[in-house]
Amino acid sequence: MVKRTLGAVPYVYPVPIVLVGALVDGRPNYATVGDCAIMGLNPAVVAVSLGAGHHTTKGVLEHRAFGISIPQAKDLALIDYLGQVSGREIDKSKLVSTFFGELETAPMAESAPVAMECRVVHEARVQHRCIFIGAVVQTYVEEQFIDKDGRTVAPLRELDPILYDLGNRYSRAGETIGQGYKEGADYAARA
Amino acid sequence: MVKRTLGAVPYVYPVPIVLVGALVDGRPNYATVGDCAIMGLNPAVVAVSLGAGHHTTKGVLEHRAFGISIPQAKDLALIDYLGQVSGREIDKSKLVSTFFGELETAPMAESAPVAMECRVVHEARVQHRCIFIGAVVQTYVEEQFIDKDGRTVAPLRELDPILYDLGNRYSRAGETIGQGYKEGADYAARA
Repeated sequence: MVKRTLGAVPYVYPVPIVLVGALVDGRPNYATVGDCAIMGLNPAVVAVSLGAGHHTTKGVLEHRAFGISIPQAKDLALIDYLGQVSGREIDKSKLVSTFFGELETAPMAESAPVAMECRVVHEARVQHRCIFIGAVVQTYVEEQFIDKDGRTVAPLRELDPILYDLGNRYSRAGETIGQGYKEGADYAARA
Repeated sequence: MVKRTLGAVPYVYPVPIVLVGALVDGRPNYATVGDCAIMGLNPAVVAVSLGAGHHTTKGVLEHRAFGISIPQAKDLALIDYLGQVSGREIDKSKLVSTFFGELETAPMAESAPVAMECRVVHEARVQHRCIFIGAVVQTYVEEQFIDKDGRTVAPLRELDPILYDLGNRYSRAGETIGQGYKEGADYAARA
């Protein structure tokens, strides 16, 4: 195995493509973002990174709240488009049907199978990036993707999110290959 | 479309499964982590969240540095196992062949197609979670996954990372479905 250097590239993959929603000047706005992740289950925290000058950032800074909506591969063209234009130029609330939860300042996309509203609990500034740590207030899942027990959500292949990699490619999720804790227990039993 | 509430669940997916490496008491240790993401390309920053009491966290706090290695689906059993046992109990450096880059305190896994060494530039504490923002110092890619131009890395399906979702399932990446900026430009042209 021979490794080559790429320079300083943040090559974590796959990147989950999400819509970050904020209320800007009283109107829902959305940014297509890949810089987003879970930062803990309990407490339920997420991180999102936005450019300091972006239109959505203005709303997050004002209301200290944001929505995260996870779109599906079938909406890829619209989602990619929403990442190329600013809410300063177009009214994105006409392209994304919005719903609100408990907060009134965290817009989420109706069309997303999963969405959550978050309150900013910490903010880090690294040059022109605003990194927001958000506590999840409530999570919304489309009924067809949730099991009768009310807790189990459909596999990735069914939710069909949009993945991204630094080769500027979008992919979809593939098949299920294992179960958490079971694979490792099998490994330990074999060792 | 009818949405149901799940409570406060940080349901961002897919979760990228990575190994976070740190030097603990002079020995490389690795934690299997899903709470990891890109936080910006330029500057190149990532975020990683670790439990405050975890063995790996001790090394990150001491040296202000960590490695991120992105394993492949073929190593799922070992990777799942590494997430179930603590470096306090077993010597994980015997299970993961380590290499170092420019920093001498950010161990990375030889077997990973992609790995990067990071210096902590910001730290946020949310209850028992330590959220580290890291500046990427150098990125290492296995030669077979990098194009002749020295910049283009293979599609996700070839890199074959491990994805996770909150249904406690592992998946692999699926096929390429589009190209960044092209899908949105096509959308705009049709609109």
